[in-house]
Amino acid sequence: MTRTLDLAIIGGDGIGPEVTAEALKVLRVAVAGDATVTETAYPLGAEHYLATGEILDEATLEALAQHDAILFGAVGGDPRDPRLAGGIIERGLLLKLRFAFDHYVNLRPTFLAPGIASPLADPGSVDFVVVREGTEGPYVGNGGRFRQGTPHEVATEVSINTAFGIERVVRFAFAQAAARRQKLTLVHKTNVLVHAGALWQSVVDRVAPEFASVTVDYLHVDAATIFLATDPSRFDVIVTDNLFGDILTDLAAAIGGGIGLAASGNLNPDGAFPSMVEPVHGSAPDIAGQQKADPTAAILSAAILLDQQALPDAAARIRAAVLADLAERGSAPRRTSEVGDAIAARLR
Amino acid sequence: MTRTLDLAIIGGDGIGPEVTAEALKVLRVAVAGDATVTETAYPLGAEHYLATGEILDEATLEALAQHDAILFGAVGGDPRDPRLAGGIIERGLLLKLRFAFDHYVNLRPTFLAPGIASPLADPGSVDFVVVREGTEGPYVGNGGRFRQGTPHEVATEVSINTAFGIERVVRFAFAQAAARRQKLTLVHKTNVLVHAGALWQSVVDRVAPEFASVTVDYLHVDAATIFLATDPSRFDVIVTDNLFGDILTDLAAAIGGGIGLAASGNLNPDGAFPSMVEPVHGSAPDIAGQQKADPTAAILSAAILLDQQALPDAAARIRAAVLADLAERGSAPRRTSEVGDAIAARLR
Ligand SMILES: CC(C)[C@H](C(=O)O)[C@@H](O)C(=O)O
Ligand SMILES: CC(C)[C@H](C(=O)O)[C@@H](O)C(=O)O
Repeated sequence: MTRTLDLAIIGGDGIGPEVTAEALKVLRVAVAGDATVTETAYPLGAEHYLATGEILDEATLEALAQHDAILFGAVGGDPRDPRLAGGIIERGLLLKLRFAFDHYVNLRPTFLAPGIASPLADPGSVDFVVVREGTEGPYVGNGGRFRQGTPHEVATEVSINTAFGIERVVRFAFAQAAARRQKLTLVHKTNVLVHAGALWQSVVDRVAPEFASVTVDYLHVDAATIFLATDPSRFDVIVTDNLFGDILTDLAAAIGGGIGLAASGNLNPDGAFPSMVEPVHGSAPDIAGQQKADPTAAILSAAILLDQQALPDAAARIRAAVLADLAERGSAPRRTSEVGDAIAARLR
Repeated sequence: MTRTLDLAIIGGDGIGPEVTAEALKVLRVAVAGDATVTETAYPLGAEHYLATGEILDEATLEALAQHDAILFGAVGGDPRDPRLAGGIIERGLLLKLRFAFDHYVNLRPTFLAPGIASPLADPGSVDFVVVREGTEGPYVGNGGRFRQGTPHEVATEVSINTAFGIERVVRFAFAQAAARRQKLTLVHKTNVLVHAGALWQSVVDRVAPEFASVTVDYLHVDAATIFLATDPSRFDVIVTDNLFGDILTDLAAAIGGGIGLAASGNLNPDGAFPSMVEPVHGSAPDIAGQQKADPTAAILSAAILLDQQALPDAAARIRAAVLADLAERGSAPRRTSEVGDAIAARLR
């Protein structure tokens, strides 16, 4: 008796649909025997918006909520198109889903696979996870423009942080560390952002005794970038706020061999809403439709989805196949579908 | 007839006094013949605070305001000392001075000197300047904690950005680019921080036509970290907000061979208040008083001070001497005073 896995697929824009197709191809093979996959495609993104005027309506959101999980490609059209200015798609679709589905854990693992070149001369062992808060902080959209367009304009951005929101992601991060190398690093900027910083630090201090095996340290976000560039092996699990996590994980992706390899999961660990996985990279409109994009990040994101759906063996098989593929082929350029085919073949 | 250069010296804590002594040693030799230097030392920092209870009183601030410029070492005591929690010294002294003396340009050049190893395997030509806004954004201290210590606590941080504050730093950055390789990159997060982001972008768009020779582009802060790690030669001048600038310049320092080499100037280009230069590094209490710190960053900061004081020839001599010193000695460990002596000797 196999279980069902009911997926929503949002390929999105640019290279999103191409890499998502490969992720699905691999996922299907990986779970064969364990689960029956059903797939519903949702045509969302910049292109859809320009054609229909809709970014994400309530009915679609309701429909998405019914699935077990969401496989997300990438969204974003031509950045010079004024109709797409101000991140309207990123906020109206990607961030909207993260907030609506309470994806409070944005999980972003980084590792440097054998066969992959890092931009660092001497990277050492790179194997850490960033647990980025996903539903609050500077991402809440609070703020405004006052006296807009005048020489006296004032624009504000309000970062909102709650004990509730921080505690749940901090607990998740501690649990990750307890299952890994027992080390958690809080990254913030407590010497400047004193209000939010003090709250983050106090939550970490309060939860720490429950995870006695885990060693906790703290780094200012600026110092954390130095360590990522000079000594990434010092990190096991990083827990940090939404914006710092955004910045650190792009840098981490670069250090782990590039955003073509960086996976992420927008998780609702409570299971009240579907989780959503996505490669860290964007839609790269310049190379879209040319089978040039590396689908590895999307494929590794599918593995996160399977972990989250209690199919850890299938997830492990995908990761092993990806590692074997990278070890053999490194980062030599291949067609998008070639990479997916090669990884799927290893799973058969 | 030589002019006078009336300096305030704030050595500060940890390695601050050691590196500042070398910077002064070199500065004195560099300006000999051009200016007569007077020096007034101000005993400020964590140690002073713990001994006296004073961080920076009004009388001291008034006295500092009378000088031509301030040479600043580093501040910050033992981070585990609860009496120093929450960045009380950093905010009460360093940030207080930046705000009180309207240091709206925080100028942070990065270059990879011949003889210096970068953590990057293939750094290419690294030579760019970050023009970081210094008096607003998330650094204003606005925000608070509500229902503190309860499960319902909310902590906010308000980033305040003004057209006035952005325009003056953007103009400065354009002028820098016009005097360099004609390329300006605005770094922000306009797809998420839409209010502040739109204001930054609109100011850059408005000022750009006045600097027709300068090519302008834009990067999200997360993407900027990737380029810093993979292709730093794409940058000439970066203009960005206070917090993004803080983060990017630590990463930039790492890429340029380490924070032992990274100089900075907190500038009030209008001249209404004294400018203040400081190495980007902190007080490093763990190696304080052992003559282990590299004073090169402090010495290069002194060169920024001389530029700003209309002594560009003396500044250029210091930079040339530092480059010659690095080319000969690389980053081999030397005593703090040895480095200062060697650079001063080249200037004689
Ligand atoms: C597209 C953008 C809104 C998004 C973010 O800032 O979270 C992206 O950079 C990411 O990291 O997933
Ligand atoms: C010490 C701290 C307040 C300061 C800052 O955040 O500006 C430092 O990191 C810097 O970059 O000068």
